[in-house]
Amino acid sequence: MDLEYFFNRATVREYSSQDIDNDTLNEMIEAACHAPTTGGMQLYSVVVTRDKAMQEKLAPCHFNQPMVTTAPVVLTFCADFNRFVAWCKASYAKPGYDNFQSLISAILDVTIFAQQFNTIAEMNELGCCYLGTTTYNAQEIAQVLNLPSRVIPIVTLTVGYPKHKEQFHTDRLPVEGIIHQEQYHEMNAKEVKNLYSHKESLDVNKAFTKENSKVTLAQVFTDVRYPKESNELFSKKFLDFLKIYI
Amino acid sequence: MDLEYFFNRATVREYSSQDIDNDTLNEMIEAACHAPTTGGMQLYSVVVTRDKAMQEKLAPCHFNQPMVTTAPVVLTFCADFNRFVAWCKASYAKPGYDNFQSLISAILDVTIFAQQFNTIAEMNELGCCYLGTTTYNAQEIAQVLNLPSRVIPIVTLTVGYPKHKEQFHTDRLPVEGIIHQEQYHEMNAKEVKNLYSHKESLDVNKAFTKENSKVTLAQVFTDVRYPKESNELFSKKFLDFLKIYI
Repeated sequence: MDLEYFFNRATVREYSSQDIDNDTLNEMIEAACHAPTTGGMQLYSVVVTRDKAMQEKLAPCHFNQPMVTTAPVVLTFCADFNRFVAWCKASYAKPGYDNFQSLISAILDVTIFAQQFNTIAEMNELGCCYLGTTTYNAQEIAQVLNLPSRVIPIVTLTVGYPKHKEQFHTDRLPVEGIIHQEQYHEMNAKEVKNLYSHKESLDVNKAFTKENSKVTLAQVFTDVRYPKESNELFSKKFLDFLKIYI
Repeated sequence: MDLEYFFNRATVREYSSQDIDNDTLNEMIEAACHAPTTGGMQLYSVVVTRDKAMQEKLAPCHFNQPMVTTAPVVLTFCADFNRFVAWCKASYAKPGYDNFQSLISAILDVTIFAQQFNTIAEMNELGCCYLGTTTYNAQEIAQVLNLPSRVIPIVTLTVGYPKHKEQFHTDRLPVEGIIHQEQYHEMNAKEVKNLYSHKESLDVNKAFTKENSKVTLAQVFTDVRYPKESNELFSKKFLDFLKIYI
């Protein structure tokens, strides 16, 4: 087995000034379309943002993460029932997709598509970074990108040629904590602490905990990065945007 | 660029009798864990079903699709906040993840992980099939696999060595219908019909329309494969299962 790329890949947040040729980008997107998709429906679209003025408009939707304006290409991957419903209506077929399961199908479709693109891009010398902020400000992104009804921004990738040659290490939990044989085996507190002990022992994570004036690494997640109040605020906003589905 | 695998991959539904070595499977899953994940949280788990009696129990949850019992391995990929919340509680950190955005993060995480596994498996001689039925019967699957609270089955892959050498063709829309430059351009009815005309013209799709006694291909989707009533029934079931998040 050749798993070298898969074990050594890492997110790239800093890009060189080299642009991405349009034919190259389109061919990668076309290849990604051959990823699995629910019933062959391809319930997704992607909006390409190269224009610097458009990137400036998108930036605040992503809390001004610098990659949005420093990457040559920003790709907003959208769950899309708009095109499929238009096809149904043009084909004497009555669509029934304004519901939660259909939304889920489209979210899975677009995420598989985005991840396939990410793999293709990374295997072909490009570097990418996912922006998890996309669903936080879906309404604002929809306005900037002129998204019609039934088109929902789900994930964003910033894409470019890496500025640096060196790779960052991607630290992951021991795989035994991820795989369950036949049935799920819930861990007790001691087993969970053991599972996370290597991650907690890394210098980068110790420094990260200290920088944020926290005692444990987990507190950085609960108090700083993904606190309850923000999660609830952005949940309310996104549910409001999704009201025809839920 | 080398895009050959990506353009030529296809879903595999029939498997040879060859088993998948456990070390091989685990190494592929470990490699897939290096896919991007929200904030490094790895909000997922995977349950491996090899035991035939367990596969028989899972089969009805997937409407008895034959792959569930004919594949050597069935992988149920789950969004998982259980382990992360346990770590928070063991680390003097107060988790706030019982909300919709956290659910979405975990769904994206597990889908990216599953798709990375799918790519790794396919690039290494295995064949896979996604079962989109996983969220239809999440409660029943959770019972069979003994999933605790905060572990939600999202996608299933059946995995094995392909029985046949020949590949099926994966028909896809022209990529111009998927890519939007700078802003979304909504198509009118004529443009949509043009976009789908190649798909509609394929013999396999014409036969499929006829077999289902429909006039248009779109009607096969709206009336047979994904009708409104089923979508709404399964939406209600899944929302009920997810009630702590929504």
